[in-house]
Amino acid sequence: MTPEEFRVAGHALIDWIADHRSTVRDRPVLAAVGPGEVKGGLPSTPPTAVDDIDALIADLDRVVVPGTTMVQHPMHFGWFPSNASLSSVLGDLASSGLGGLGISWESCPSLTEVEEVMCDWMRQLVGLSDSWRGVISDTASTSTLTALLIARERATGLSQNEGGLQSVGEPLVVYTTAQAHSSVAKGALLAGYGWDNIREVAVDPTTYAMDPVALETAMAADRAAGRRPAAVVVSSGSTGVVAFDPVADVVEVAGDDVWVHVDAAMAGAAMILPECRHLWAGVEQADSVSWNPHKWFGTILDCSLLYFRDVDFVNRVMSTNPSYLQSAVDGDVTQYRDWGIPLGRRFRALKLWFHLRLDGIEAIQTRLRRDLANAQWFADLVDEAGSGWQRVAPVRLQTVCVRHQPDGMTDDEADAHNLAWVRRVNASGAAFLSPSQLDGRWMARVSIGVESTERSDVAALWQLMNDAVAAPA
Amino acid sequence: MTPEEFRVAGHALIDWIADHRSTVRDRPVLAAVGPGEVKGGLPSTPPTAVDDIDALIADLDRVVVPGTTMVQHPMHFGWFPSNASLSSVLGDLASSGLGGLGISWESCPSLTEVEEVMCDWMRQLVGLSDSWRGVISDTASTSTLTALLIARERATGLSQNEGGLQSVGEPLVVYTTAQAHSSVAKGALLAGYGWDNIREVAVDPTTYAMDPVALETAMAADRAAGRRPAAVVVSSGSTGVVAFDPVADVVEVAGDDVWVHVDAAMAGAAMILPECRHLWAGVEQADSVSWNPHKWFGTILDCSLLYFRDVDFVNRVMSTNPSYLQSAVDGDVTQYRDWGIPLGRRFRALKLWFHLRLDGIEAIQTRLRRDLANAQWFADLVDEAGSGWQRVAPVRLQTVCVRHQPDGMTDDEADAHNLAWVRRVNASGAAFLSPSQLDGRWMARVSIGVESTERSDVAALWQLMNDAVAAPA
Repeated sequence: MTPEEFRVAGHALIDWIADHRSTVRDRPVLAAVGPGEVKGGLPSTPPTAVDDIDALIADLDRVVVPGTTMVQHPMHFGWFPSNASLSSVLGDLASSGLGGLGISWESCPSLTEVEEVMCDWMRQLVGLSDSWRGVISDTASTSTLTALLIARERATGLSQNEGGLQSVGEPLVVYTTAQAHSSVAKGALLAGYGWDNIREVAVDPTTYAMDPVALETAMAADRAAGRRPAAVVVSSGSTGVVAFDPVADVVEVAGDDVWVHVDAAMAGAAMILPECRHLWAGVEQADSVSWNPHKWFGTILDCSLLYFRDVDFVNRVMSTNPSYLQSAVDGDVTQYRDWGIPLGRRFRALKLWFHLRLDGIEAIQTRLRRDLANAQWFADLVDEAGSGWQRVAPVRLQTVCVRHQPDGMTDDEADAHNLAWVRRVNASGAAFLSPSQLDGRWMARVSIGVESTERSDVAALWQLMNDAVAAPA
Repeated sequence: MTPEEFRVAGHALIDWIADHRSTVRDRPVLAAVGPGEVKGGLPSTPPTAVDDIDALIADLDRVVVPGTTMVQHPMHFGWFPSNASLSSVLGDLASSGLGGLGISWESCPSLTEVEEVMCDWMRQLVGLSDSWRGVISDTASTSTLTALLIARERATGLSQNEGGLQSVGEPLVVYTTAQAHSSVAKGALLAGYGWDNIREVAVDPTTYAMDPVALETAMAADRAAGRRPAAVVVSSGSTGVVAFDPVADVVEVAGDDVWVHVDAAMAGAAMILPECRHLWAGVEQADSVSWNPHKWFGTILDCSLLYFRDVDFVNRVMSTNPSYLQSAVDGDVTQYRDWGIPLGRRFRALKLWFHLRLDGIEAIQTRLRRDLANAQWFADLVDEAGSGWQRVAPVRLQTVCVRHQPDGMTDDEADAHNLAWVRRVNASGAAFLSPSQLDGRWMARVSIGVESTERSDVAALWQLMNDAVAAPA
């Protein structure tokens, strides 16, 4: 495709996107396709003919859009906010259009240095001190795995440079809670710790936050049994109920020998609001912190920030320095390939840059405060509703966890009932929210925070929920 | 940013990209900025004001473009071709604009199913049988790490579900060659094998391909010493000289118990040409294969294809199944989160879809054949030049490795001389190529394959090289 063909096709696609985003509200939230339906709409063998952009756009409308759950829809209350601000879409387009390559500083100095500056701007915006330096990774899953790999190497004095984890006699242990994101256990398994060496530390039964006394007890028991505590993964905003583990207490218990990683994937966005920062108080004493602008904050996926204090050690674990990538300036520049798993990197900083400058941080702060207020308003509705509605966890930010269990309904019956009414809401296409388990029982997570979600949308959801619990099974 | 604001700004950015791509040839290939120069052009604190797209575009021109090494430049012969076809830029824009979220099939059925279809189309295009199923990962580094994690778990009977790698008594060993990409050793280190358990198997001194007899000897020695061979990483197109390890011989030596991963990151693209497929003959008996459309093939970064035969086992290693992501159709659909490290995934298949349909596979095949012919033509020039020019490795595809060492120059002098003349070429901005070490000596890799590189550009490079070796030091 020539630049002039791109110009014409690009204008058409920009218009399609603008039209699509303008009409998201008119679509069902949950994609109404069955398994295999999208696949069935495409040829099973690769095309030999050449198409034009109109054919591609027609197929976006025919195959892709109907098969897309509209997480940009104002009535999307599922999982977590996955905002894809149009300003950041432009930043991502600038990255693609530029066609730069991030394999070394030399291969694209601006890719490295704009990323350094954006990580530093974002550090300032969430109130972290300048002892932290950041990098952009794809997702919090990768950030957590990276932290656990580094923790493993710190605990073993860089065993990777000798016999590897398999040569370490004393088993290494990772601590987290049952409320932590699934990627914590997955990261620990992939890093080689093994399921037997993952501790689900007890949580406070009301707040679902890690109990630091239980952490201390667990660590002592492991040490007494000849095992070595290596890492604690703290949830600053857990997946299910957005609980905040007490970072200050955890870092004190962990001491200097145990790596503390703070996983603030969704909730880190709240730290752009000074009034929320008490929720991760103590974070300055952690070893690594990660949060995802690609969630509530609204910079398009994929954009996970990962901060370290001891960058030199990180680089020793993650270093790669083949001869064909060496250059005369290597000692004077940041080589982001030594901060994580991939060598080749996209110019992701541009989407942060565009998002911050085109939307402005004040507007983003105002939006997040709107969502916090909407969540409190909704929580009050639930609390005052009676007739079986229960709010099953504290509302720390923008997620409200509810269960409907009228008098006389058993817990098992209520499990089935809650799954059923949530499915009725979701199947209607009018709204979407996620069923989830808490203490072994099914509840519904109402995650508020889509860019376009206003108070009236939350009110409409509440009406739908009340209709759904009253509907015949 | 509203959709209507996006429409206006998007048109401006599309035009900027079309203009930028039209004028790449007029720019220096190597970014002419020093360390810190880009950073110095940006404010050290985040902005409070809101900007418009014109301000952003002005800053792209002021800060970003001068700090970008132009890997899309026809005179870029460095590292490897990192083509970013404009058709795939549009596919990536469609992905961003759609704003879909890949965390489960349900969160975006089309994201999953279009990816399945694109991986299958690409499988057919490189001549792999239908016993392979693919996934898109970000880079070959991640693909290799993923393969080595799965190999580790296969060798240990899923040790991750019990005591982890640290509980395994018998050390596990990974085999590759010194010619393999740096990500192979890095992946083995991160997977916990340890440096002591990475074997650099001897290569043929002429072809730089792995010697299968040496592999067999190394494995036997490890077994005799109580260690267990776990994985072989085969280079189908090594980084330095694009050597092809003999896959058929390797899989035979490896047998059923040792995982064989084929790393065809750059060279896999050549397999869309039937006449090149003999280079990876035997690939059907490997356990995993990876190659990157985001290199020579030209689908914009990041797009690494990773194929497996035993997907069930892969899913057991990589599985994550939290309650909030469960849905009624889980048994009937592909959950790509169980194929790799990240949970959240972009809709990367769209860039492959757009690339294949808007450019057409025939045009891509023709372009690759052009590059193969240009490389042969250039190799002939070097071979016939005399006056100190040496071609130091066979030309298998599009990379020509040369060294200039006139009569009477010692090897050490020639090392300094080759680094010097390559730096002269690169510093001129007129062309770029990568110095690299081979057998402990410096040479220059001339990697041909940028989308816009024609025979005349290769001829111009040859002239520059001859001028550079003759220039005063």
